[in-house]
Amino acid sequence: MSVAGVSEAQFAPLVRAVAGEELDRAQVAERFARAAWTTIAEPGDRDAGVLMEALGPPEALERLTNGVEADDLAAELADTAATEVTADQWTDALKRWRPRAGSAATLLALRQAARFGMRMLVPGDADWPAQMGDLEAHAPFALWVRGDPARLASLERSIALVGARAATGYGEHVTIEAASGLVDRGFAIVSGAAYGIDGAAHRAALASQGITVAVLAGGLDRFYPSGHEQLLGRIADRGVVVAEVPPGTTPTKWRFLLRNRLIAALSCATVVVEAGWRSGSLNTAGHAATLGRPLGAVPGPVTSAASAGCHRLLREFAATCVTNADEIAELAPVASGLAEDDATRGSTAPRAPTDLTGSRLRVLDAVSDRTPRRVERVAQLSGLALDRVRAELGLLELEGFVLERPSGWMRRKQD
Amino acid sequence: MSVAGVSEAQFAPLVRAVAGEELDRAQVAERFARAAWTTIAEPGDRDAGVLMEALGPPEALERLTNGVEADDLAAELADTAATEVTADQWTDALKRWRPRAGSAATLLALRQAARFGMRMLVPGDADWPAQMGDLEAHAPFALWVRGDPARLASLERSIALVGARAATGYGEHVTIEAASGLVDRGFAIVSGAAYGIDGAAHRAALASQGITVAVLAGGLDRFYPSGHEQLLGRIADRGVVVAEVPPGTTPTKWRFLLRNRLIAALSCATVVVEAGWRSGSLNTAGHAATLGRPLGAVPGPVTSAASAGCHRLLREFAATCVTNADEIAELAPVASGLAEDDATRGSTAPRAPTDLTGSRLRVLDAVSDRTPRRVERVAQLSGLALDRVRAELGLLELEGFVLERPSGWMRRKQD
Repeated sequence: MSVAGVSEAQFAPLVRAVAGEELDRAQVAERFARAAWTTIAEPGDRDAGVLMEALGPPEALERLTNGVEADDLAAELADTAATEVTADQWTDALKRWRPRAGSAATLLALRQAARFGMRMLVPGDADWPAQMGDLEAHAPFALWVRGDPARLASLERSIALVGARAATGYGEHVTIEAASGLVDRGFAIVSGAAYGIDGAAHRAALASQGITVAVLAGGLDRFYPSGHEQLLGRIADRGVVVAEVPPGTTPTKWRFLLRNRLIAALSCATVVVEAGWRSGSLNTAGHAATLGRPLGAVPGPVTSAASAGCHRLLREFAATCVTNADEIAELAPVASGLAEDDATRGSTAPRAPTDLTGSRLRVLDAVSDRTPRRVERVAQLSGLALDRVRAELGLLELEGFVLERPSGWMRRKQD
Repeated sequence: MSVAGVSEAQFAPLVRAVAGEELDRAQVAERFARAAWTTIAEPGDRDAGVLMEALGPPEALERLTNGVEADDLAAELADTAATEVTADQWTDALKRWRPRAGSAATLLALRQAARFGMRMLVPGDADWPAQMGDLEAHAPFALWVRGDPARLASLERSIALVGARAATGYGEHVTIEAASGLVDRGFAIVSGAAYGIDGAAHRAALASQGITVAVLAGGLDRFYPSGHEQLLGRIADRGVVVAEVPPGTTPTKWRFLLRNRLIAALSCATVVVEAGWRSGSLNTAGHAATLGRPLGAVPGPVTSAASAGCHRLLREFAATCVTNADEIAELAPVASGLAEDDATRGSTAPRAPTDLTGSRLRVLDAVSDRTPRRVERVAQLSGLALDRVRAELGLLELEGFVLERPSGWMRRKQD
């Protein structure tokens, strides 16, 4: 058996080395294909998600490596859910994917993962976080993990604490109080391992003997930022470090923006502790809102630029004002259910409402990075009402995903 | 002619001395009666408002001084809007009013007012603030004023800046920035002349050559607090000092709570700059919300007890987070209309929605200060749904108007 021209003998030992469970041959093939897709498509690539959903990852990969035409693909998928992708979009997608379709990168990534003792999780694994389902076609193709993946079960009761790299002493103080208070209340702390608020959140969680999960934008073979290498090592020892991109991937601005959706999706609620007016944390907040996850913001002095983004979230995004660990814990929809019966943890935890899911991503999907499109066209492509599209474009612009040109809206280049 | 046993010769010169316009004999009689009612009924006494509305102030006063029985009053008013007051409530009201029904206090108040150069405004006067109409039966019977009442027209474009007496340097700084910024944008500043935030707001408005209005809880013959005597003198010179209670009235806790409804009602929007968890400013905020007036709260460090009340307003009262004069100006419904056509000021200024008006006051009216009443009974008396009554009682308790006893809810004693 071979997948996309790579023989089973080549990939099977590598795939098994990074799997946490016994695998049959079909599972090995699927894992290899998923690993390949993490090297081919960028995080959140809806078209890749749709294709894998329709054909299964190995078949999807075969089509790509066998040089399928967009029209044939559209025709083949005409009777599946994949009709939401147009022939034009398949053309664009194939153009994006083909330059990366070789197998060498995948084999290298798997080898690196094995060398670093990583695990690769795929949907259906016991440790695969169920929350990823809320991302629908934008879910990660796989997750690369350092640390015990079983600890991801603690995400059923978790809070994302995120914020500015340029944090103030006030912001770090509040973060430390909040993180340790939340750990005491049985919450895991999710963050992005950046300097400032993120680092303070992870550190305080570790100091309180809690579980903390760091979600990175680059490959786990090289911890970023480098100044947090030791911290990330400790998180891997006592918590989990996660990325959806394979080893060897550099963190780019685009990948940071998409990484933020994982932080939001993996947590029961997201809290921004400090953020400048245009902070990347607002992007995480936007993802939380899109996913229908509760969003909190910690107020601060109005004279502090480091709190301006939080106040903006309170004013413009209807974030909940939170001032301590108790109020943050109240945000999490999971908390009250668990309080009644702790034994249900990890099984029947209530899920956040998801009625907002998708509309922002559908708008983003309808914006091209090559051709500016007018709002009317974006509405047509996304199948959403004009005023909703206008609102979502405004938010996407704020979050750094799109920009407005005189001739219309464009997706920001993935830099 | 005489009113309630006082001859026209006695009261007419005094009434005319504190009136700003030519008066006919009927107007003089009405003013005397209204002045009398300010000495007889406490601020916000709905029953007095209903009675005056039904019979006119002089007739209402005649009934009281002639010893009318509650049943007769109920029967006489059976065909008017005054049926919202039950015979039992008339009994209570007459008991409240009778001990104060003598005319000496009224004549003394008018004499004092004339001596201090006050003016007395009544509904229908050119300078009577139209906003008072939103208080319906809880409107003041008259307003006692020091300073040029014509300046009250500036309330068509005004912001109430209120907050803790125990303000911090941060709170005072923000208040000063906000007040002067709002004056620069053409707003009058309304506040309560207390130490702390209130004083800073008045001072900054004066320093910026703006108009500022101080609303006091006691009679204007003695400025309160005494440490602000000079400040209040300057406000009277260049702005307006207002009270609904007559000269000679001491400020009580109850009167402060009711005074706060005037601050809220006289302003296009109310902003709490700093407030402790149980600050009286939350009461003003509650009045603003009840009146459907926009409510803003300035965030501060979560580590500052002086901001805890503001954060509570953001969390529990859906106050808008405001961080500077621009954002505060946006709150005021009047501002945008005026920006388009400044000439319309004072005539067609849009009014805040008033659909919240009354339900909180109706619940308060249905709670007795002598007999504890169960929620079900309060619902019956107020004609409101049970869950609404429960919610309003909770807010009224927070605001210090009612308290819960084992046997039911009671109105707090007027101390």
